[in-house]
Amino acid sequence: MNTVLVIAPHADDETLGCGGTLLRHIALGDAVHWCIVTDMTTAAGYSTERVAAREQEIADVAEGYSFAGVHRLGFRAAELDAVPMSERVAAFSTLVRTVQPQIVYLPFRGDIHTDHAAVFDAAAACTKWFRYPSVGRVLAYETLSETEFILNPESRPFQPNVFVDISTYLDRKVELMMRFEGEHAAFPFPRSEQAIRALAQVRGATAGYQAAEAFMLLKERS
Amino acid sequence: MNTVLVIAPHADDETLGCGGTLLRHIALGDAVHWCIVTDMTTAAGYSTERVAAREQEIADVAEGYSFAGVHRLGFRAAELDAVPMSERVAAFSTLVRTVQPQIVYLPFRGDIHTDHAAVFDAAAACTKWFRYPSVGRVLAYETLSETEFILNPESRPFQPNVFVDISTYLDRKVELMMRFEGEHAAFPFPRSEQAIRALAQVRGATAGYQAAEAFMLLKERS
Amino acid sequence: MNTVLVIAPHADDETLGCGGTLLRHIALGDAVHWCIVTDMTTAAGYSTERVAAREQEIADVAEGYSFAGVHRLGFRAAELDAVPMSERVAAFSTLVRTVQPQIVYLPFRGDIHTDHAAVFDAAAACTKWFRYPSVGRVLAYETLSETEFILNPESRPFQPNVFVDISTYLDRKVELMMRFEGEHAAFPFPRSEQAIRALAQVRGATAGYQAAEAFMLLKERS
Amino acid sequence: MNTVLVIAPHADDETLGCGGTLLRHIALGDAVHWCIVTDMTTAAGYSTERVAAREQEIADVAEGYSFAGVHRLGFRAAELDAVPMSERVAAFSTLVRTVQPQIVYLPFRGDIHTDHAAVFDAAAACTKWFRYPSVGRVLAYETLSETEFILNPESRPFQPNVFVDISTYLDRKVELMMRFEGEHAAFPFPRSEQAIRALAQVRGATAGYQAAEAFMLLKERS
Amino acid sequence: MNTVLVIAPHADDETLGCGGTLLRHIALGDAVHWCIVTDMTTAAGYSTERVAAREQEIADVAEGYSFAGVHRLGFRAAELDAVPMSERVAAFSTLVRTVQPQIVYLPFRGDIHTDHAAVFDAAAACTKWFRYPSVGRVLAYETLSETEFILNPESRPFQPNVFVDISTYLDRKVELMMRFEGEHAAFPFPRSEQAIRALAQVRGATAGYQAAEAFMLLKERS
Amino acid sequence: MNTVLVIAPHADDETLGCGGTLLRHIALGDAVHWCIVTDMTTAAGYSTERVAAREQEIADVAEGYSFAGVHRLGFRAAELDAVPMSERVAAFSTLVRTVQPQIVYLPFRGDIHTDHAAVFDAAAACTKWFRYPSVGRVLAYETLSETEFILNPESRPFQPNVFVDISTYLDRKVELMMRFEGEHAAFPFPRSEQAIRALAQVRGATAGYQAAEAFMLLKERS
Repeated sequence: MNTVLVIAPHADDETLGCGGTLLRHIALGDAVHWCIVTDMTTAAGYSTERVAAREQEIADVAEGYSFAGVHRLGFRAAELDAVPMSERVAAFSTLVRTVQPQIVYLPFRGDIHTDHAAVFDAAAACTKWFRYPSVGRVLAYETLSETEFILNPESRPFQPNVFVDISTYLDRKVELMMRFEGEHAAFPFPRSEQAIRALAQVRGATAGYQAAEAFMLLKERS
Repeated sequence: MNTVLVIAPHADDETLGCGGTLLRHIALGDAVHWCIVTDMTTAAGYSTERVAAREQEIADVAEGYSFAGVHRLGFRAAELDAVPMSERVAAFSTLVRTVQPQIVYLPFRGDIHTDHAAVFDAAAACTKWFRYPSVGRVLAYETLSETEFILNPESRPFQPNVFVDISTYLDRKVELMMRFEGEHAAFPFPRSEQAIRALAQVRGATAGYQAAEAFMLLKERS
Repeated sequence: MNTVLVIAPHADDETLGCGGTLLRHIALGDAVHWCIVTDMTTAAGYSTERVAAREQEIADVAEGYSFAGVHRLGFRAAELDAVPMSERVAAFSTLVRTVQPQIVYLPFRGDIHTDHAAVFDAAAACTKWFRYPSVGRVLAYETLSETEFILNPESRPFQPNVFVDISTYLDRKVELMMRFEGEHAAFPFPRSEQAIRALAQVRGATAGYQAAEAFMLLKERS
Repeated sequence: MNTVLVIAPHADDETLGCGGTLLRHIALGDAVHWCIVTDMTTAAGYSTERVAAREQEIADVAEGYSFAGVHRLGFRAAELDAVPMSERVAAFSTLVRTVQPQIVYLPFRGDIHTDHAAVFDAAAACTKWFRYPSVGRVLAYETLSETEFILNPESRPFQPNVFVDISTYLDRKVELMMRFEGEHAAFPFPRSEQAIRALAQVRGATAGYQAAEAFMLLKERS
Repeated sequence: MNTVLVIAPHADDETLGCGGTLLRHIALGDAVHWCIVTDMTTAAGYSTERVAAREQEIADVAEGYSFAGVHRLGFRAAELDAVPMSERVAAFSTLVRTVQPQIVYLPFRGDIHTDHAAVFDAAAACTKWFRYPSVGRVLAYETLSETEFILNPESRPFQPNVFVDISTYLDRKVELMMRFEGEHAAFPFPRSEQAIRALAQVRGATAGYQAAEAFMLLKERS
Repeated sequence: MNTVLVIAPHADDETLGCGGTLLRHIALGDAVHWCIVTDMTTAAGYSTERVAAREQEIADVAEGYSFAGVHRLGFRAAELDAVPMSERVAAFSTLVRTVQPQIVYLPFRGDIHTDHAAVFDAAAACTKWFRYPSVGRVLAYETLSETEFILNPESRPFQPNVFVDISTYLDRKVELMMRFEGEHAAFPFPRSEQAIRALAQVRGATAGYQAAEAFMLLKERS
């Protein structure tokens, strides 16, 4: 049994990027911890009702997955670049020491949303073996509406080298994603049921499965 | 009206990679020329019947598209790396001088099938403005079952920067692809109707269309 | 007729990077909007006279081009990295929604001046089709004295794939550049008439023109 | 229990690149198959004695590892680039269909010895799931005296993302390497005991082990 | 005789990255200046004793090398990303104008510690010939425990192209490193004597020396 | 005094790529050897007169530079990819052992002419320290009409990190280039006097010289 930690800059990234894989971990008996880095807040212009609804969605989704733990870092969405690195690292450091994960899922560094880069840089710093010896495997997931919108020609695009069969979990992944009101819309919107299923099929065709999620392995030690 | 040249290492690559875009060019009045670089031959182990059937398929597909010309280079499939570069360049040089295209579609250099690299290198050498002044725009297309199977960590993956709306041409693209017997199979095989549609949806979601084909712009001069 | 938006971290970047191309857009009837992201200010140590002179230069240059609009974001030069991303994105978001451009020119992400990266990241986030549907084509330009001084071995250098013939606009581009007092000096200073002409010739020789400007296409959808 | 296939362009590459990891596989009960792609031959200028001695070394090493199989492809060393791709692919295709490996170790594509690239390209083509469904994991190993001598600035260097603890196998790895007469020499020669140990320590320090071997994961499907 | 400037984000980076090379510069009569960018402070949670001890270590090491100058920029460790770029550039600008170096050693941009990137970006901006004409050669060094822990798949890893023979300086380098209490530990900790020696051997084996330090040349003008 | 070896796939590449730098080496007393890899031949379709004229041009240019040696490898132009690697390496191996250079100039690996890649790969294999200990510095030069025409999006473009002041040698470089009849033409042809001068100015503006040649340092050991 492994302890798994998925780090989501915003609630729903974990489902878009690795919902099927997390369901499979849980089905196999792994303990999966969900870290939500930022929150919707009224300070950021969301209504009290919307904030409350989001809290309920998070509770629903956490229950839907049967996560072993939900960890809220409480930063403000879309403002992570303004949080000093030392403060971000401190939060992830405490998280990793608390959860003691063997497997960590991170967003892709190059995603067009800077919150994703800010999360990646700080979380990546919390994977060194001599400070965080539990960590044995670190992977980056892709996030529809962020990863495929990369414009920067300097950087390398997402090039998956790990494919996970989620054929039996895709319907449930879609169902969980649909619980986040306001985060999905009709195709061709990228966070739509049809786009999620199409990406799962494309990744599946590369790996020989009806549906797959794809990752970049960043580090494995064993 | 533009003259367009699509270079297919093997018959069907043009359809997988840019079938919808070619149909759109033709609908807009452009003259599209199809270059098929390699042939099925009995010498390569194909039966006389299969070779004859393939010839019929090519004729059917060419008529289906209403191509302005079909250009057969007559090399043997899966053996292009053994053809000296000077011989390959000579063939493409004659082709480009004959067709005088403004727009050229090439396979992606990194595709796992070495025929694609052999075609790319020789064809790319036939796009210099001082020898081939007609050429104004060169793009690379992606080929299901080749482009996404790249393993080489040295090279950059396919990262599209041009998205073409093929919403009204996708059905016809699929229908043309299905004419190539023996090149398609059931999903999750990559050259299946379902995988073709899923990729078109994924590319569409990135660009705001019901279906799209994606390309890398290699050069444009105007 | 297209609406074109050029985003200049500092006044003169638009001219160095795409002055000839902008003149050509205007000659072809396109409406070109100039966004100047940062200002010279007395707070930053410039004299009242210099600040006033720069304002006059900007007015002169805007008139010289016949720009359809000049948009001043009012940030302080050389301090953009300290402006929170959310604030930068908000400014570009309003700009893009106001101008509704089909074509956008951005500085290169890797330029050694961090203002260029700060502009790129925020502006790139304002090109997603589902929020900014007008945007059909996004290109990065090169800026003499910034782009060629990249030291970072991690990143890819500027590798142009779009070449625009500016043979009939080069003299005017140079003349407009010379209006920015204090931004140019004698060769081999990179922002000198001779360097500007030499770069235009080098890019021209690659594309078959007496003079050219070169760009990287980041995204095109059509 | 897994079936493992290591592909060595020349006998000794398997030991330099993954000797410790192979010993660990075997200790864990995996069946490890050794493919030696090229041979020393008298035609290539080696003496009859040297060729015979090499055959004995191969037998000794195979026994030393307790390999489940030794597969000789019989190509001539340093001449693989001249073997048509179709012929190389045919050899690897038969090999993979025969061995039915779950895990495959390949040399790094960028190694300065072109035999390594020729092996990589052909072997990589034999990992597609729909032709070779047994293959679940493909990794590239580093080869002292080849990988670190890459000069080509176009390509990415070897950047390991998998680290295997070989602390208890390093001595045995060195001992096996020393059985290849003529392939090792005194430090600072790269194929020396001291260099092998130093690299194992450097990789170990990155992963938290007394000694490690490092790999790039190319593909994993599960 | 050259003037050499080594920029260390934290005291000890100069020794890990180029201690042997600096000793060789000094032995050859060059004047070597040590810039320490950040300090240990009680504000950052270090005890008064530790801060005082660190000051003594710095004095000892400076004397041990016979540095021509020690330049303290006085920023706080692990917080450089929060220092505005303009402030960092101002500090390095004054430094470079004061020291007037011909040769500059910088940390690698991609190192996992963001202080290294923050130093690189600001220092790199202070190497343009028209503002800092003394600078003729700029190199990036590797730092054990930072450079090899890069996780970001977007960026290129450290790929050295300059190798300096430090065979006669390695013992002294190790001895100087050991003066920094609290920065080293037992192998396999990366900042251990054994790891330092192993890396020097690996780099030496690539270049033909008993021990070497490796660098990436970023710019040379002559 | 150094021994310098410049390797030109075709006569004139040495002048386009590093003519000024070679003249400067010679002015400083270095012995410069010119290796011409391929020849014009009547077998390749050149007239007897053209072949004879080229021989005379080579003699003229060699005398013009005062080269210490001219080494003809005698391969056929545009057909190097068809020469087995072992044969190419053998030729370069003999060359390097004979000339015993400290400094080697190579064409860029990515140049669109495959002869350049074929030369690079074989020559690069002849720079390992344990077989060719004289070699201390290896650089790649850029070749107008080849380097800037790279189309392959997989590979990194030429990104110079070494700039050599050729202000006092540029006129002579141009004069030597003009001796190769049939290799130059009027601007905007890339191998024209104007393009050569423009590139020298662009490289000069980056480095602070009236004219410069630019290189990528591939390896330096000292």
